[in-house]
Amino acid sequence: MADTMKALVYRGPEKIALEDVPKPTLKEADDAIVKVTTSTICGTDIHIQHGGVPTVQPGTILGHEFVGEVVEIGSAVNKVKVGDKVAVSCITQCGECFYCVRGIYSQCVSGSWIFGHLIDGCQAEYVRVPHANMGCHHIPEGLTEEDVLYVGDIVSTGYYGAEQANIEPGDTIAVIGAGPVGLCAMATARLWGPSKIVAVDTIDERLQEAIDNGVADVGLNPMKDDVVAILKDMTDGRGADATIEAVGIKPTFDLAIEAVRPSGTVSLLGVFEEPQEIAMESLWIKNITITMGLVNSNRIPELIRLIQSGKLDLNFLTTHRAPLNDIIKGYDIFGNKKENVLKWVVTPFER
Amino acid sequence: MADTMKALVYRGPEKIALEDVPKPTLKEADDAIVKVTTSTICGTDIHIQHGGVPTVQPGTILGHEFVGEVVEIGSAVNKVKVGDKVAVSCITQCGECFYCVRGIYSQCVSGSWIFGHLIDGCQAEYVRVPHANMGCHHIPEGLTEEDVLYVGDIVSTGYYGAEQANIEPGDTIAVIGAGPVGLCAMATARLWGPSKIVAVDTIDERLQEAIDNGVADVGLNPMKDDVVAILKDMTDGRGADATIEAVGIKPTFDLAIEAVRPSGTVSLLGVFEEPQEIAMESLWIKNITITMGLVNSNRIPELIRLIQSGKLDLNFLTTHRAPLNDIIKGYDIFGNKKENVLKWVVTPFER
Amino acid sequence: MADTMKALVYRGPEKIALEDVPKPTLKEADDAIVKVTTSTICGTDIHIQHGGVPTVQPGTILGHEFVGEVVEIGSAVNKVKVGDKVAVSCITQCGECFYCVRGIYSQCVSGSWIFGHLIDGCQAEYVRVPHANMGCHHIPEGLTEEDVLYVGDIVSTGYYGAEQANIEPGDTIAVIGAGPVGLCAMATARLWGPSKIVAVDTIDERLQEAIDNGVADVGLNPMKDDVVAILKDMTDGRGADATIEAVGIKPTFDLAIEAVRPSGTVSLLGVFEEPQEIAMESLWIKNITITMGLVNSNRIPELIRLIQSGKLDLNFLTTHRAPLNDIIKGYDIFGNKKENVLKWVVTPFER
Amino acid sequence: MADTMKALVYRGPEKIALEDVPKPTLKEADDAIVKVTTSTICGTDIHIQHGGVPTVQPGTILGHEFVGEVVEIGSAVNKVKVGDKVAVSCITQCGECFYCVRGIYSQCVSGSWIFGHLIDGCQAEYVRVPHANMGCHHIPEGLTEEDVLYVGDIVSTGYYGAEQANIEPGDTIAVIGAGPVGLCAMATARLWGPSKIVAVDTIDERLQEAIDNGVADVGLNPMKDDVVAILKDMTDGRGADATIEAVGIKPTFDLAIEAVRPSGTVSLLGVFEEPQEIAMESLWIKNITITMGLVNSNRIPELIRLIQSGKLDLNFLTTHRAPLNDIIKGYDIFGNKKENVLKWVVTPFER
Repeated sequence: MADTMKALVYRGPEKIALEDVPKPTLKEADDAIVKVTTSTICGTDIHIQHGGVPTVQPGTILGHEFVGEVVEIGSAVNKVKVGDKVAVSCITQCGECFYCVRGIYSQCVSGSWIFGHLIDGCQAEYVRVPHANMGCHHIPEGLTEEDVLYVGDIVSTGYYGAEQANIEPGDTIAVIGAGPVGLCAMATARLWGPSKIVAVDTIDERLQEAIDNGVADVGLNPMKDDVVAILKDMTDGRGADATIEAVGIKPTFDLAIEAVRPSGTVSLLGVFEEPQEIAMESLWIKNITITMGLVNSNRIPELIRLIQSGKLDLNFLTTHRAPLNDIIKGYDIFGNKKENVLKWVVTPFER
Repeated sequence: MADTMKALVYRGPEKIALEDVPKPTLKEADDAIVKVTTSTICGTDIHIQHGGVPTVQPGTILGHEFVGEVVEIGSAVNKVKVGDKVAVSCITQCGECFYCVRGIYSQCVSGSWIFGHLIDGCQAEYVRVPHANMGCHHIPEGLTEEDVLYVGDIVSTGYYGAEQANIEPGDTIAVIGAGPVGLCAMATARLWGPSKIVAVDTIDERLQEAIDNGVADVGLNPMKDDVVAILKDMTDGRGADATIEAVGIKPTFDLAIEAVRPSGTVSLLGVFEEPQEIAMESLWIKNITITMGLVNSNRIPELIRLIQSGKLDLNFLTTHRAPLNDIIKGYDIFGNKKENVLKWVVTPFER
Repeated sequence: MADTMKALVYRGPEKIALEDVPKPTLKEADDAIVKVTTSTICGTDIHIQHGGVPTVQPGTILGHEFVGEVVEIGSAVNKVKVGDKVAVSCITQCGECFYCVRGIYSQCVSGSWIFGHLIDGCQAEYVRVPHANMGCHHIPEGLTEEDVLYVGDIVSTGYYGAEQANIEPGDTIAVIGAGPVGLCAMATARLWGPSKIVAVDTIDERLQEAIDNGVADVGLNPMKDDVVAILKDMTDGRGADATIEAVGIKPTFDLAIEAVRPSGTVSLLGVFEEPQEIAMESLWIKNITITMGLVNSNRIPELIRLIQSGKLDLNFLTTHRAPLNDIIKGYDIFGNKKENVLKWVVTPFER
Repeated sequence: MADTMKALVYRGPEKIALEDVPKPTLKEADDAIVKVTTSTICGTDIHIQHGGVPTVQPGTILGHEFVGEVVEIGSAVNKVKVGDKVAVSCITQCGECFYCVRGIYSQCVSGSWIFGHLIDGCQAEYVRVPHANMGCHHIPEGLTEEDVLYVGDIVSTGYYGAEQANIEPGDTIAVIGAGPVGLCAMATARLWGPSKIVAVDTIDERLQEAIDNGVADVGLNPMKDDVVAILKDMTDGRGADATIEAVGIKPTFDLAIEAVRPSGTVSLLGVFEEPQEIAMESLWIKNITITMGLVNSNRIPELIRLIQSGKLDLNFLTTHRAPLNDIIKGYDIFGNKKENVLKWVVTPFER
């Protein structure tokens, strides 16, 4: 077996290249080496490509959403064995630190989001998975790799946004942004029994996707609709019980806050690149709660179980599929929202 | 208008009669008089009929699950007006006492479950509704009376059982008893996103009803199935994350406790007539939580909203429908579970 | 008895006057008229005086923190009777609306903060109390009026700030602002068992007050101390588990956010007059929660019980005491933080 | 160094002996060997001595509450190093299983309570600590070993009982049983801000201890006092908001249930040896919650922090102190509650 592999390497802002690089090797006792059998391009990768995440060093292999097969394990790995098919969390977690024992894996002191960020990622043929006992989740019989492809990142991210939103049965929830993460937030918000999920996006096709795939009940386009007024109309004049923001820019930040009812919750999922202004002079009396954050990915086994029982199905997100050979093209299509793309799935390199 | 009306009166154990009695009148400033347009017979009424609820005085009009039209209001009633169509809570609540400010309407010091128990109930042509501002809920346009008939009692009861069960997305939930309350518990348990709802009953037809109407995923009959073993098999050997008991007898009490996983929750909805034994010598180390109780009916507006948005539909419960004239027959059929009855609906007296 | 009384009337920005005005009378069935026996000047009154709360109409009697004696009740009042000594909530609540049934009295649709804001307040000899059943709380035997004087507003406000802060036993909590509300937040934050309460203020005397009265463990002055660094040092480098902001200006807003640990909570109590900027470009990955809001005053009976049992004692806040005759002077001293004032207590008008 | 050590060995019901046994050695990569510098005798040890815990095999070294010094570590241990002084959890936890990721260490599938139960315990000179990264907690500078001696078991157990009791600020809490665990439950219940903690025990000296050491406000002796009536009298006729049972026998089980108010919580900590009867025929309508269970010990770092900041102090529990040489005498005195013993502390074997 060759010592090198193909991988997408970040070489600085606007510079990514498919290169031959050394295969990863075990470093710590609880590492595993996973052969990547299916991966994706994520919105954060596009941020990185454009230089928006300066903590990424040139030379880093990108990618953090994937499934694969365990090919080597360290001496302390006992939850998976060579040959296992696994869905891997985009968040690395030790399970033992102050944050991990609270389930806040996003802030793990020896982990957090590091794949394709601080260490090499999964847009490659192989990847080293630290803390493999915690991060690798078996794919149960009866499910395909693609069925669970998104649980490691965007389904977990949507779930985190919905969980933070404090949804109660019967609530009216607005999800602002109907891209892949927003659609996952809608699909998982259902798990808390809202009476209505309202998708908000400026692209009508995405609103239609949301409704056609049963993850939203109503679609609103702020270019045409008075979103705040319609939400108030749906709720006896109060506003949405919670809003989930999944974009990361000023108009969506503002709308998320404006559309929520007094004492409601604004759950921010967007990766913001700019500071935002918040109207504290009128909000102090409105008793709202604002949460934000990186996904914890702490409910992957439960999400897999929901997929397995047919209660959750995100397969409709996969609009494009191509081998690692074509990943640069994938960055273009996915990054520029061409061809009504939702998710670009990367299959193994073809020699 | 005559001063008397038809009503089903409790005259002592095993003695109920359809009688001519005086129409109710306003007593307190926040009373309303409601013309009963649709009501039901509830399992508790059968307990009362057989003398199982000794706090019911002979002479009491029975019944506590109903919808109707407001025909008279006291001076302090401002949430409903004469002519309004309303679904009425089976629980009377003041909104102001120690318990009510905590949402625990079941323990309201000037209310709780009193209809057809401590004051006259709804199996009549008219009924006095105390604390009407809190207990009467408008039926929104587009919904029929029967659509919301059960929200005042059994849907709320099922909801309470599910709420107490601490269900988390992905959980496996066993509901023991697939009668009307159990079926409502299954339907509302869905609102917290379990991956599987398992109906347990000794009557196969009821299990089939549960599955056919989409409120359960699996049906188990303890006369034939090893319920505990199958639940463990579904959950990597752990047991149900929560069990909801909706019967009130020893075998269902025992099963609810035996089937739950360590540190899971047992939510008891049954109206028990006997003390129960609990295996504390083995349970002290199992870390389970047991809850019990009378419904709070504190989420009726939300339940109506869920029905309105199509997320909840209990209309399948109505298997029988007859005017107040035939209510004695209804007690026989419903009380003795004849004709695959689920709910016996009482329509107005026909002269 | 005369038909007029003395009252402090708002006549527009920077114009307040002690005037003879008509005594209040009952308007609604659940109103009570309360003879004000002790009241205070609150920070919000100073905002109003300077024109900072434009919703206050000229002609309004100011004041919303008080205790008194019931002298007249409407026909629907049944929780208090004439002659009762009561502590009154600064928040008026119906107990029945969407918000009230959730305990969110701050957003009551027929109440909220209206005393001395949208209706006449308590800096007068008499005041009309709407929804008196919910807003009036008996003063138990053994307690003086002053013992419970602050429960209606600032103790409840501090409590709300602490409650929103999600404090867990052992936490390190920073309270920014050691004025009356901040001191109340410290005193009530203790109720959730933090290991350390850190008072932050630019006035050393206030820090000393906080420590001397046992409501804070440590005092930090941002003019001298590197507050963020010291808090991190106390917490293995993490930062405060929660920060409570009780001022309402840019430096305290910024500090509250900067000082909290990842995934901690920022609880804002300040009455802000300006929008604020929030560094979403770095916070999106920090997973914090920000809450804000007007007090609910939904735990007054419990606060009284804690005072009665000696677990809570805010009497040290009373630094000044004078009859209504001198209230203009009180606005000057309290509003300009002269004479180390913490609270200016208003006793009855002396003729 | 010798290969043997002194240890207290269980040889079957009523047979314990101080023997020379082989020193423990590392078995797993995440094991540590700890030199026991201070340990205790716990109530559970007495149960074991009398044959009440049949899962304990003859030949097992007893004991599970201790502090010590790390003398050897496995290759995967990275949280402690040789020479560290540590307080050790009585509960062994992997941090990775279904239960551990939920913080329910009591049910860890490769751990739970195993010291002195399923594996050798700490009433010895050395002990093997599995999953040492999770179970060993540094003793901070400034604290003595005895200051934190009880955090691994009885303080955590008391805390667990209090945490499960759902205490809210202002509540009235009854703790039934004023032995070491009950006293710890009282001390930690304070962390949730109750207005009153009522100690209940049949031994007046213990009630006095509780009050003198500031962990209870009131003491009641059921041999003399009508506990239920007095608790109702303290709470406007309702009963205790929560009861915590720390004994494990019928009278205390019954009292815990009888003394709680409607919709309150009964938190059972007792190690029961018999099934109990529960009056479901009257409780179904009382809406109470009953929890039970083995301690999770998941908040040891926070408990240490509270001790360090002076907010928690259980040193008064130590009434007796003697070297391992005298441990058989300790079992007699502690087991038979002689000499007003609260805790018997075991110091190192003296040669």
